[in-house]
Amino acid sequence: MTTTTPPVTLDDVQEAATRLKGVAHRTPVLRSRTLDALVGAEVFLKCENFQRVGAFKFRGAYNAASRLTPEQLARGIAAYSSGNHAQAVALAARELGTTAVIVMPEDAPPSKRAATEGYGAEIVTYDRYTGDRVAIAEALATERGLALIPPYEHPHVMAGQGTAALELLEETGELGALLTPVGGGGLMAGSATAAKGLHPDIRMVGVEPEAGDDTKRSLEAGRRVSIPVPKTIADGQALHTPGELTFSVNRRLVDEIVLVSDDEIREAMRFVFERLKIVVEPSGATPLAALLSGRVSALPDRIGVIVSGGNVDAERFARLCAGGV
Amino acid sequence: MTTTTPPVTLDDVQEAATRLKGVAHRTPVLRSRTLDALVGAEVFLKCENFQRVGAFKFRGAYNAASRLTPEQLARGIAAYSSGNHAQAVALAARELGTTAVIVMPEDAPPSKRAATEGYGAEIVTYDRYTGDRVAIAEALATERGLALIPPYEHPHVMAGQGTAALELLEETGELGALLTPVGGGGLMAGSATAAKGLHPDIRMVGVEPEAGDDTKRSLEAGRRVSIPVPKTIADGQALHTPGELTFSVNRRLVDEIVLVSDDEIREAMRFVFERLKIVVEPSGATPLAALLSGRVSALPDRIGVIVSGGNVDAERFARLCAGGV
Repeated sequence: MTTTTPPVTLDDVQEAATRLKGVAHRTPVLRSRTLDALVGAEVFLKCENFQRVGAFKFRGAYNAASRLTPEQLARGIAAYSSGNHAQAVALAARELGTTAVIVMPEDAPPSKRAATEGYGAEIVTYDRYTGDRVAIAEALATERGLALIPPYEHPHVMAGQGTAALELLEETGELGALLTPVGGGGLMAGSATAAKGLHPDIRMVGVEPEAGDDTKRSLEAGRRVSIPVPKTIADGQALHTPGELTFSVNRRLVDEIVLVSDDEIREAMRFVFERLKIVVEPSGATPLAALLSGRVSALPDRIGVIVSGGNVDAERFARLCAGGV
Repeated sequence: MTTTTPPVTLDDVQEAATRLKGVAHRTPVLRSRTLDALVGAEVFLKCENFQRVGAFKFRGAYNAASRLTPEQLARGIAAYSSGNHAQAVALAARELGTTAVIVMPEDAPPSKRAATEGYGAEIVTYDRYTGDRVAIAEALATERGLALIPPYEHPHVMAGQGTAALELLEETGELGALLTPVGGGGLMAGSATAAKGLHPDIRMVGVEPEAGDDTKRSLEAGRRVSIPVPKTIADGQALHTPGELTFSVNRRLVDEIVLVSDDEIREAMRFVFERLKIVVEPSGATPLAALLSGRVSALPDRIGVIVSGGNVDAERFARLCAGGV
């Protein structure tokens, strides 16, 4: 039997929290009597839609970028992202006085592209259905001498992303379960590391869109499996395979993965809009969709939810509510 | 020269705040770097869209209802309202263990009607363009022996509504200006009483939709004037004349009224949706519309805004963003 050191520890998440103090927002934890009544439990929503750049991604990007050497920062940062990580790296670069080049799919939401450029980043596009974004970004980084900050597959990124769960638990105390969206797996890996580090008995529930169930399949197979690039409204979770590092954490710490349909996600987005008066993007609404549709069985009395982001423009929100994409 | 006692004082607002403790939410005060940069000032948003029933109206309704005698409460409450006050009185009645009958226009948003019924209230409808809601409600109250709680024209309602400004100023300290929507004038009367009671130099700016400028015209005329029932997307401000009591306060305490167009309101709703990730109804967005469109001149460095409510359903939000009503 071999024991390997995990790529991220509770100490790493706590150190990330110190680095993020005064730079990332300490986002509010919202409650709703209506939601509690519907779910039949006390639900605590950690609202990362109110985070800088509108998503938890800033936590990981800034933590990783802040650990670069002065020489690396002088040369600049590169990243690939379907959206929120792009803005996160662009803002982290600006905060640290350097520049960013972002490799982004050409069909990324216009609002995400505009916001990324607004933070001063240069954008290089590729075709999400045919191109290999990692290869493109790595070539670019090598060519220009840039430090590549991946969206999840990096210990400092996972540690930074886990600070959302750390803050939530500091505020709520012990919870029976914590639900987070699972895309590449960085938010879950960091959150599970923080949560189980503090409260070993907490039940970690990941939520994926039905079409993007790569982590669920991988956990069942006991190894990373690949699925075709999924088409789902949850664009932040449209990935074909879990990260290697994130999966090594999540296979140890995740208790279950729950799947939700695109229509359940639409309904959850509408629910929080009309009842909680907050804007949540499709991927960010997947845990709420799981709760509201009764997809999670044997719920404990106190449940935490990471509401991971709120970057959806008004036109897309309208299309989604009308059943579109 | 005669001196009349004002219908509402700072003491009244402070006493209302004590009654509301633990019943109304102490709503959050949000900030936005983007908003500050666009406006060129520090802007503090008192988010009454997160209040119970989704609007500041609960503060006034509960304060007034809580002062009824046990005999009055045993008989029940009546109210007339274009929407949010209806839900507010319905919930206040339920919280105080009594029943409510609400006179509501037949074209009120379905979500507001459903929410009011959801709190257990009985609804009686009328035609907003031909009927006299006050007369209908008064007849009903007399007939059934109910206590009528008006939406603004009552000292306890104004005092309760003013607690939003009181809480905001407790949190921010002195502000150069405070912007609130003006409909019947109760929120402004209570807010101005609280704000000028604490900080006599604060500039009180009311905001009305262009089509519903009855308070602006009345202040200019030095007496209450009537306009045709306005058609505007700001349904909470579609009134033809200011209240008598509220106007007696506002003519003393309001420094200026600013008007905004329906398109400026739509743009403000979209702005807070996409950048702040919060849902604000048309009337609630009028002060933000005034700030974002540059309608307020000589802005001070620190500005408070009462974001009065967030009751707009997803379909209407989509229609509004597309330029509709």
